[in-house]
Amino acid sequence: MEKLNISRLKEIVGEKNVKDDPADLYIYGTDASVHQAMPWAVVRPENAGQVQEIMRYANSEKIPVIPRGSGSGMCGQTVPVNGGIILDMKRMNKILEINLEDVYCRVEPGVIDDDLNKALKPYNVFFPPTPASSIIATIGGEIANNASGVRSVKYGAARDSLLGVKLVLASGDMISFGTTTRVEASGYQIERIIAGSEGTLGVIVEATLKFVPLPTIRCLGMTNFNKLEEAGDSISEIMASGCTPSMLELVDNVAIKAINNALKLNLPDVDAILIFEADGMVKEAVDFEITKIKDICETHGGFGTELSFDEKERERIYTGRKKLFPSLSKYKELMPSTSLADDMTVPYSKMAETTRKIHEIAKQNNIIMSAYGHCGSGCMHTKILMDTTKSESWKAAEKAVAQIYEYVNSVGGTTSAEHGIGISKAPAFKIEKAASLELMRGIKKAFDPNNILNPGKLQDASDDWLNATKLRYTVSDKCE
Amino acid sequence: MEKLNISRLKEIVGEKNVKDDPADLYIYGTDASVHQAMPWAVVRPENAGQVQEIMRYANSEKIPVIPRGSGSGMCGQTVPVNGGIILDMKRMNKILEINLEDVYCRVEPGVIDDDLNKALKPYNVFFPPTPASSIIATIGGEIANNASGVRSVKYGAARDSLLGVKLVLASGDMISFGTTTRVEASGYQIERIIAGSEGTLGVIVEATLKFVPLPTIRCLGMTNFNKLEEAGDSISEIMASGCTPSMLELVDNVAIKAINNALKLNLPDVDAILIFEADGMVKEAVDFEITKIKDICETHGGFGTELSFDEKERERIYTGRKKLFPSLSKYKELMPSTSLADDMTVPYSKMAETTRKIHEIAKQNNIIMSAYGHCGSGCMHTKILMDTTKSESWKAAEKAVAQIYEYVNSVGGTTSAEHGIGISKAPAFKIEKAASLELMRGIKKAFDPNNILNPGKLQDASDDWLNATKLRYTVSDKCE
Repeated sequence: MEKLNISRLKEIVGEKNVKDDPADLYIYGTDASVHQAMPWAVVRPENAGQVQEIMRYANSEKIPVIPRGSGSGMCGQTVPVNGGIILDMKRMNKILEINLEDVYCRVEPGVIDDDLNKALKPYNVFFPPTPASSIIATIGGEIANNASGVRSVKYGAARDSLLGVKLVLASGDMISFGTTTRVEASGYQIERIIAGSEGTLGVIVEATLKFVPLPTIRCLGMTNFNKLEEAGDSISEIMASGCTPSMLELVDNVAIKAINNALKLNLPDVDAILIFEADGMVKEAVDFEITKIKDICETHGGFGTELSFDEKERERIYTGRKKLFPSLSKYKELMPSTSLADDMTVPYSKMAETTRKIHEIAKQNNIIMSAYGHCGSGCMHTKILMDTTKSESWKAAEKAVAQIYEYVNSVGGTTSAEHGIGISKAPAFKIEKAASLELMRGIKKAFDPNNILNPGKLQDASDDWLNATKLRYTVSDKCE
Repeated sequence: MEKLNISRLKEIVGEKNVKDDPADLYIYGTDASVHQAMPWAVVRPENAGQVQEIMRYANSEKIPVIPRGSGSGMCGQTVPVNGGIILDMKRMNKILEINLEDVYCRVEPGVIDDDLNKALKPYNVFFPPTPASSIIATIGGEIANNASGVRSVKYGAARDSLLGVKLVLASGDMISFGTTTRVEASGYQIERIIAGSEGTLGVIVEATLKFVPLPTIRCLGMTNFNKLEEAGDSISEIMASGCTPSMLELVDNVAIKAINNALKLNLPDVDAILIFEADGMVKEAVDFEITKIKDICETHGGFGTELSFDEKERERIYTGRKKLFPSLSKYKELMPSTSLADDMTVPYSKMAETTRKIHEIAKQNNIIMSAYGHCGSGCMHTKILMDTTKSESWKAAEKAVAQIYEYVNSVGGTTSAEHGIGISKAPAFKIEKAASLELMRGIKKAFDPNNILNPGKLQDASDDWLNATKLRYTVSDKCE
C-alpha cells in the first residue's frame, strides 16, 4: 500500500480517474461473488497507451494490477486478494470497426455486450456469447472468463467468437494475437488461452470478434416433467438426435417454487421443466427442429408443452427462467441466494443425476440448493440458499461446495462452465487440474515474470476460499 | 547420432518397431513438402506407456523427438532438421470410444480421418475438419496442424472440434487437458494451443473430439466468372449476407487450364470459377441458402451456373476441384507442382486482389502459380510450377514466396490457414509474429525445457528455408 505512488498514477490518467477513498475502494473490492478485499487504488485508463504506462510503473514497483470490467463476476475473479491497483476498463468502450465485407468487428474491452449487439443489429448480425448479464457485462470480461450463455449450445462461448486480441503484458509491451480471418494455423494461437485467463496473463485493450447472421425466425418451447430423470434422458437424446437447439434449459423444482413465490407465475409444481428454442432463416427448418425436440421430450414423459413463434408469447413463456436468479433470493425469509458452487459442467447423461446429487448434498448440509442451467452445453448452475448471517451456514456451504465439485470431477465434468474460477471455485479447480498446475505456472511466468497480474488466482489461488477474503453477508441480486 | 542407443529403443517398443536403415530413414525424413533431412531412427510406439518411456530416455539424453502421423504435411513440419527420433504414431490407431449420449468420441492419434468418419457414419454424425488428405491424414497430425478443409467455412477447423487431449510431455509425464463437455471456463484451456503447435509442446496420445449431425441434404453449385474481381465481390457478399455455405471454393484460370489439360473436362476457360455447397436437414432451408448464393454470384456477373442435389451429379461437378492438386503437376512439361507458399489466409475482400497479386509475383519471377482455396474461410492455396531441376527456379521461388507473404501480411492475412508452418513458411511466420516470438519461446520452455520436441521449428525455425534442409527435386503428388 505505502509503496503506491498515487500522484504518478494521476499523471498518467488524470486526477479524476484515480480513486483511493475507502468508499470507492470498498465497492471496487468486490463483484457479484461473496468475496471482498480492499484494493490500494482504482485507476480508469482511457486508452492502450495509458494502460502501457500503468503496467510499466506497476511492474517496476511489483504492484499487483487487476483488470476489471463491470464487476459482474460470480466468484471473485477481480477481487484483489493481495491488494494493488484495480484497472477499471469501462472508459475504453469504443466500437472501433464493424467490417461487413470481411465479417468481423473490433472493439475496446469496456464495450457492454448489449451495446455491441445494438450496434450490430441494423446489419442483421449478432455477437453470440451473450451471458445473462449482457446488460452490464463488458466484452473484455467476457473474454477473460470465456463467458457464454443460453445460446452457447448452438453458437459457442466467447472464445469461439474471438478472432484476435491486443494485449498489454505486465512489462507494458503491447502484442496483437490472432487474425481477422476465419481459420488460422500459424503456430501457437495464444488468443485462445487469453480467453479464460481471468486477467492473469495480460490486459486486453482490443478484441477482434466474429459476428454471425441474426436468425429471422425463432420458436420457443417449454415442457413439464414429473421426474427429473425424464428431463435428463430427453437432454441426452435431443443432443444426440441431430437437433441443433439454439437454447436448451433445465429448471428444477426448487427454482420453480422460488419463481412461483417471487413472481406468482403459477408454473406447475413439477420435478423439472425444460425450456428449448430453435432458430433459423426458414420456417420449415425451425419447425423441423422444434417438433423433433418436442417429440423427444414427450416420448420421455414431458407434458403440457407450450410452443410459440410469437415474440410476446416467447417472452411470457421465458419470464420465469429470465427472473430465476433474483427469484431465488426471495425463496424464503433470511435465505439469500449466495453465489457459491455457481457453475459447473457435466456430461449430458449426468444432468439429472447431478441435480439429484446437488439436492442430496444440500439436504445433508442443512441448506437449500437449486440446480438449473444451459444443459444443452453441459452447463449447470446452482445457488446456495442459506442464512448468511450465521457462520455455521458458511461452514455448511464450504462442505457442500467441496462435495459438489468432488462429484462433478468424478463424472468427468469441469469446475466452471462459463463463470470462471475466481476465489470460491479455486480449491475445486486446483484439485481438478492438479496435474497441470505447474505447467500453468510456467505459462503464467512467460507472460508475467513478476506475477503482478491478478496474483493469487487460478493455479496460485488459496485452497481455503472461506478464509481467503472477507465474506459479504449480503444478498447478491445480479441477474443469472 | 552416435549418442543414440538403438538397443534401448528396441527394449521399449520391440525389435521390429525401430528402424535405422538408410532407406527407411530417407523416407521418414521427408513429407509432402520439398524438404528432406535424415533422422537417426524411426520408432513406432504401440501405446502411451511406450511413448512415456521413449520421452524419458530422449529427455535424459537430450535427443530430438519428432512426432509424425502419415507424413502428409505440406511444409516440412515433421522433417527432422536437427536429426533425432521420428516417432511414428500410426500404430496407435484405435477408436477408443464413441459416446452417443454425451456426444463425443475418444481416439488414439494414429486414427485416419476417413476411418473415424466411417465409424461415425452409422450414427448419422461426423467429425467435420476433413482436410483433402483425409484418406491418409491422422487425427494427431490434424490437431498438431489445426487442419481444416473445404467445409471449415461452416464447421470450423480441427481445434474447433477438439474437446480434450492427453499429452505426453518432454519429461515423459502424461497430462490430460480439456473435458468432454461443450463449454469450459476453467482457467487456461491448454488444449487450444496444442492445436497448431506442430509437435513442439508434447506428443498427443489421445484426443476427445466433438462430432456433429450428418446433413441429410446437400446441394452443390458451380458458377463461372469472366473477371476474378466479380468472383471476389461475390465471396464477400455471400459471407456478409447471412448465408452459411458448407463449402465456398475459388478456382483460378491457371488451375482451370491445368484441370482441362489433365482431365479433359472442358471447363470453360474463364478467369475464375466459384464452387459452393449448402447442406442441412430440411430441403427448404438448403434451397434458401443455395438460391441466395447463386443469386449473389449472378448479380456479380456469374454465369453458366450448374446446381444439383443429386449425389452423382454433385460428384461430376466437383471432379475438377477434387483433382486440382495432382492436375497442377501436369500443367506443363518439366513444370512439377511444388508445395511452396502453399497456404495463407486473407480477408474476404482481398481474395481477388490476392489472386491477381500471386499471378503478378509469379510472372515477375518467371514461374507459374495457381491460386485457389476455401475462400469461405479466408483460406487461399497456391502451388509453384517450375523446373525443379534448375537452381535458378529455386532462387525465383524463394523470392516469390517472400513477396507473397509480405503482401498477405500487409492486408491483414496470416501465413497459414490449415497446412501449418513447418520449414518453408517459417521465415514469413517469424516476420508476421515477430512481436510474440519471445512469448512463444517462453511457452515452449514451460512444456519442453530441454527443447527436444521437434526443435528448430516455428519460433525457433531457420530464416533461410532454402538452405535449412536438402530440397527434393521431385514432384509431390499428394492430394490437395
